[in-house]
Amino acid sequence: MKIGGRHYRSLWWSGDKDCLEIIDQRWLPHDFRVAELRSLDDYATAITEMWVRGAPLIGATAAYGIAAVMRGDASDAALSAAYDRLHATRPTAINLRWALDRIQAALVPLPVPNRAGAALQLAHEIADEDVEINRRIGEHGLTLIREIAARKPAGEPVRLLTHCNAGWIATVDWGTATSPMYHAHDAGIPLHVWVDETRPRNQGALTAWELGSHGVPNSYITDNAGGHLMQHGLVDMVIVGTDRTTRTGDVCNKIGTYLKALAAHDNGVPFYVALPSPTIDWRVSDGVSEIPIEIRNPREVTHIQGTGADGIAEIRVTPEASEARNDAFDVTPARLVTGLITERGICPASEAGLSGLFPDMAG
Amino acid sequence: MKIGGRHYRSLWWSGDKDCLEIIDQRWLPHDFRVAELRSLDDYATAITEMWVRGAPLIGATAAYGIAAVMRGDASDAALSAAYDRLHATRPTAINLRWALDRIQAALVPLPVPNRAGAALQLAHEIADEDVEINRRIGEHGLTLIREIAARKPAGEPVRLLTHCNAGWIATVDWGTATSPMYHAHDAGIPLHVWVDETRPRNQGALTAWELGSHGVPNSYITDNAGGHLMQHGLVDMVIVGTDRTTRTGDVCNKIGTYLKALAAHDNGVPFYVALPSPTIDWRVSDGVSEIPIEIRNPREVTHIQGTGADGIAEIRVTPEASEARNDAFDVTPARLVTGLITERGICPASEAGLSGLFPDMAG
Repeated sequence: MKIGGRHYRSLWWSGDKDCLEIIDQRWLPHDFRVAELRSLDDYATAITEMWVRGAPLIGATAAYGIAAVMRGDASDAALSAAYDRLHATRPTAINLRWALDRIQAALVPLPVPNRAGAALQLAHEIADEDVEINRRIGEHGLTLIREIAARKPAGEPVRLLTHCNAGWIATVDWGTATSPMYHAHDAGIPLHVWVDETRPRNQGALTAWELGSHGVPNSYITDNAGGHLMQHGLVDMVIVGTDRTTRTGDVCNKIGTYLKALAAHDNGVPFYVALPSPTIDWRVSDGVSEIPIEIRNPREVTHIQGTGADGIAEIRVTPEASEARNDAFDVTPARLVTGLITERGICPASEAGLSGLFPDMAG
Repeated sequence: MKIGGRHYRSLWWSGDKDCLEIIDQRWLPHDFRVAELRSLDDYATAITEMWVRGAPLIGATAAYGIAAVMRGDASDAALSAAYDRLHATRPTAINLRWALDRIQAALVPLPVPNRAGAALQLAHEIADEDVEINRRIGEHGLTLIREIAARKPAGEPVRLLTHCNAGWIATVDWGTATSPMYHAHDAGIPLHVWVDETRPRNQGALTAWELGSHGVPNSYITDNAGGHLMQHGLVDMVIVGTDRTTRTGDVCNKIGTYLKALAAHDNGVPFYVALPSPTIDWRVSDGVSEIPIEIRNPREVTHIQGTGADGIAEIRVTPEASEARNDAFDVTPARLVTGLITERGICPASEAGLSGLFPDMAG
């Protein structure tokens, strides 16, 4: 999508520099910086430390990471070591494993000298596919927004709420949850997006930044506010992304998503999840008991980064001696999800719904 | 309660300085500062700008504010003007109106020369009553914690979750939601308190600070985390405070309380509200539609204060152009509340429950 009128993807292969360039998201929205990834260390650090984040983008970045390794050493041992290293970077997002499995399966049968070229080609394909999947999610989600707009007085915006950043910078382009928003905005439907702050890392600031950069009206709200807004009729629909969705439709996403789903359910507000098929974990049935939830550094809770008087600064918000805990994701049970917006259309959050749209994958 | 081994109240009348001294809570937990209030302007600013906050403390402070005015001009006109000015400082907390109505009703019949002394005496009484009410809330709440502890393996802590700061610094002493915690801790029951951060003003940092200062184990968590912790059996009970509770048991409290109540209900976790009787609004039946919700300055959302490299600093977390919205409270419907812990005992969150305990007030 656009920043200052110029179109960007969140990552791109630079032929000149012979490396992957990424938007280094640690500094957004306060500073726009591009980083170059070359070594396996670079890739693993960029994923673990959240220079890149968002399930689809993590998958695509990991694919390029394998490609980068193959250019130096395309042996089975190097492939296996790179797989393990990258797989360990983040435990929750399923796209990571999906991309690594796919690229490993494609490379193993190839003669070693052919692997580097094939790996880079496949990474490009995974990135391009992500863009196309998200474009289609946007088209399907647009139909839902059109229906709401049609029931409103002319000129009154459709009010959407989203949590975290499932935006274009969490994918290669378009985003998942934001793709219907961009499609609706570009189609001339008036929108207003409530952007959950999404503590601890305040990814809502990324969402506010990218929506604002593209011209979509939005307001930044605390994670506490959404239920109150729904009680007062100020939310027409919730759309969030997901880091892993079970074959039964349980949705793992950024911590706090479950609370918004409860509030939506309590107030009769439709709660939709934008779900690219690589984010479905067909092996898992019960989200709450089976999906590993990453517990990250408590410093992400006790300290906050922002723009201070002298540029980007970090402050501590807690008492010096305070302990903190930082569970990064939660699981929203399928019963609270109105529907899943996939690249093949919209379905109920259920095994029947998902296997109906994806009979080739459901196995 | 105690700070560094010394007992404090959150406000005290200084005979030496002939003014009210308060803990200026804007700087906590980063700095402990005491402020002196003398003029009506001082009092109004201290309440509006949240040097003091918390429904019971606001009420007591306003009572001293009337007393301060009476010392200079005890006329009906001065009393009425002070009432109006102080009443307008915060729209949601009912204790403010309760304290002002009480002191006005006591002063109006008195000869003007007697009013100053009577007002100060009544302010002292209101402050002392608050301490006693909260002490009793603690005793009643303690019985609930004892019951949970009795069902646990020996040594396993009772895990409580609280939102915002309904602590001793939100009252004159003991706190409302924290009073059962202090009582249980002092009785030797092992506790662990999950402290919601409570954006936008991070009053959870106050709660972590005061619990830590008194020696009660606690962890600071984001507002997003509580539902996930409940899903995994890590919360035995929720106790929160309230800024206004309707005659029917609808609970208005800091924004985000409703989301925790939904999660508690969904997971079978008891959800209790510590409710001093001055916080009951006997005139209101439907909380969501009738209680005015204060919308505060969006800067409280876009900017955060903490300890930086060079002391207390403020940073902006949002993109420069971002809009924000700052609803300060929400309403938890009575159906989600397990019980109300009052100074007269515990009752269901219902008209029958409240009027059963307070037949003299229910009217």
